[in-house]
Amino acid sequence: MTGDTTDPQGTAALRPSSRVTLDDVARHAGVSSATASRALGDHPHVAEATRRRVREAAALLDYVASPEATRLAGGPTGRVAVLVPHPSRWFFGELIEGLEAELRAAELDLVLFRVGGPEERHAFFARLPARRGVDAVVVLAFAVDEVEHARLASLGVVVVAAGGRVASYPSVGIDDHRAGRQAVDHLLHLGHRRIGMLAGGDEQRLSPDPDGRASAWRAALRDAATEPDDDLVVTVPWDGEGGAEGMSRLLGLRAPPTAVFAHCDEMALGAMRTLRRAGLRVPEDISVIGIDDHPLAALTDLTTVAQPVREQGRRAGAMVLDTLRGGPPPRVPPAEMLPTRLVLRGTTSPPGVPR
Amino acid sequence: MTGDTTDPQGTAALRPSSRVTLDDVARHAGVSSATASRALGDHPHVAEATRRRVREAAALLDYVASPEATRLAGGPTGRVAVLVPHPSRWFFGELIEGLEAELRAAELDLVLFRVGGPEERHAFFARLPARRGVDAVVVLAFAVDEVEHARLASLGVVVVAAGGRVASYPSVGIDDHRAGRQAVDHLLHLGHRRIGMLAGGDEQRLSPDPDGRASAWRAALRDAATEPDDDLVVTVPWDGEGGAEGMSRLLGLRAPPTAVFAHCDEMALGAMRTLRRAGLRVPEDISVIGIDDHPLAALTDLTTVAQPVREQGRRAGAMVLDTLRGGPPPRVPPAEMLPTRLVLRGTTSPPGVPR
Repeated sequence: MTGDTTDPQGTAALRPSSRVTLDDVARHAGVSSATASRALGDHPHVAEATRRRVREAAALLDYVASPEATRLAGGPTGRVAVLVPHPSRWFFGELIEGLEAELRAAELDLVLFRVGGPEERHAFFARLPARRGVDAVVVLAFAVDEVEHARLASLGVVVVAAGGRVASYPSVGIDDHRAGRQAVDHLLHLGHRRIGMLAGGDEQRLSPDPDGRASAWRAALRDAATEPDDDLVVTVPWDGEGGAEGMSRLLGLRAPPTAVFAHCDEMALGAMRTLRRAGLRVPEDISVIGIDDHPLAALTDLTTVAQPVREQGRRAGAMVLDTLRGGPPPRVPPAEMLPTRLVLRGTTSPPGVPR
Repeated sequence: MTGDTTDPQGTAALRPSSRVTLDDVARHAGVSSATASRALGDHPHVAEATRRRVREAAALLDYVASPEATRLAGGPTGRVAVLVPHPSRWFFGELIEGLEAELRAAELDLVLFRVGGPEERHAFFARLPARRGVDAVVVLAFAVDEVEHARLASLGVVVVAAGGRVASYPSVGIDDHRAGRQAVDHLLHLGHRRIGMLAGGDEQRLSPDPDGRASAWRAALRDAATEPDDDLVVTVPWDGEGGAEGMSRLLGLRAPPTAVFAHCDEMALGAMRTLRRAGLRVPEDISVIGIDDHPLAALTDLTTVAQPVREQGRRAGAMVLDTLRGGPPPRVPPAEMLPTRLVLRGTTSPPGVPR
């Protein structure tokens, strides 16, 4: 079956599985090693019958793939680094899910680096562990300063950003300004004019476009012939406790808002806890809207603007693959923006009668 | 300063940074390469002054570490694979955070493999991409069947489980039975006897100890001289929608429970949405308790049993390092259990007056 004079008795199958090579599989299947590599690597240009024959040979011989044999994308290491501020947060986890699925299909490995706090980021960029053999780096939703930008450039690898625009890297994200407009315009349509905003703070530089959502609030109010009141804006961390604290401050105003626009759902949920504790009803007393469509938004009936996060991760992975496969670099790095949409649930309504 | 006759003019510093080697750094610092390696790798047995001198030399020469030079733990690859069912879920993200921190400190890289649905798991184990050069594999909270167990064994690498006991691997998790007792005993102490349970289903084999929390419900009721009523048990997926669906079924009973024990907080939050929509108040009409102390528990005032998830990830990483460093294998693989504790918030109270 192999027609191979170097192994006439087909003893390749008798070697311990750890010794079976791609060449053994190719011989057994009666194809070249290059063809066997493409067949196992899900390369598109392989006849279905050939692919099947090679896979059967691989299974029969208990062949275990090694990166050099089956990796589809170019690059000498078969690894892609992903730099993540907070792996435990839904947003980053979803980006990772999409990215991993895309890269896994091309048999690339994803190496995860957490760059959460300022010291970890500093240590990371100073010591460049990502240098240890990766073909590409994906930055998840944190701004990169000049020093870090230079460090990444010194790696000589492909860099792609997901979850927002970062420096001048090819990126995929959403139109933050548009998402903000969808949220605030909804409140304006309901009749609200005194609209508070819980703005995500920038200490961790988690917001590549810190002004997009905030400028949307301002522009939407002006388009509704309403002067934006900066007393109605509080800047807090991008999480539940930040939202809770921010809502508390807004309630302390002489004239509190009748509706609140939170830059993300977790902040909105924190705001709702503050309102609950203050004995205020949502939406009867105050309307609340967020951005994301976090899984907890559905569980809490939170009205929000949905963004496709996993898809951003996938698109980032696809950009990495395109570049590794040697596509011509675009003259202007692409900044893909995926669409967002308003999701009406139960936390917004027209302004109620003042108590 | 270098005293090195092979590079008397110190021209090492003039080479492009990508060419600077560990030997260059060692020479510049006036130490052996072995010492330089230990100094850069945070090895404990290096004098502080030496460590500083070597690091200054590395910074001056813009030396970029490579795995072979600075990796502290043994193993030829410097990489550890982590198998994750759902990276976007808080629980798995927290395990990853703890694991990554521990491994990063030892300069090991974490390679992430998502093994979410049955087909991905099957494909993963069938093709063993993890074979591509890792020294250890960490399994996050999913049961491994015999075929998969054999596959992992064929890798010849260290295997550790985090988030629960898995097969016979060294593991770190919590005492699920104890956590369940803490939850149900709390409800019994408040006076509840008709206690429903939202049990996490096992389709994705996400629960290595599917019976621990359920058996706790049964045992706690018996200890309170109450016969467990299986009509009060519904098995649903481990998420918010599962909890919502399960609560709906419990409300359909002729005699609904006065309190509900959900196997995890997300299920509890889903149950609370169902109750909210049914016009029922928590805790006045029905008490609800979960397990985890998920970040959303604090935002929704959910009473729960807290488990230290990030710490489980860290301990798993420490177990990996211990084994790679050549510690003698224990006769019985360790099954570490980290403590859990009741966190009282606002969703439980004594049974109310029946409507």
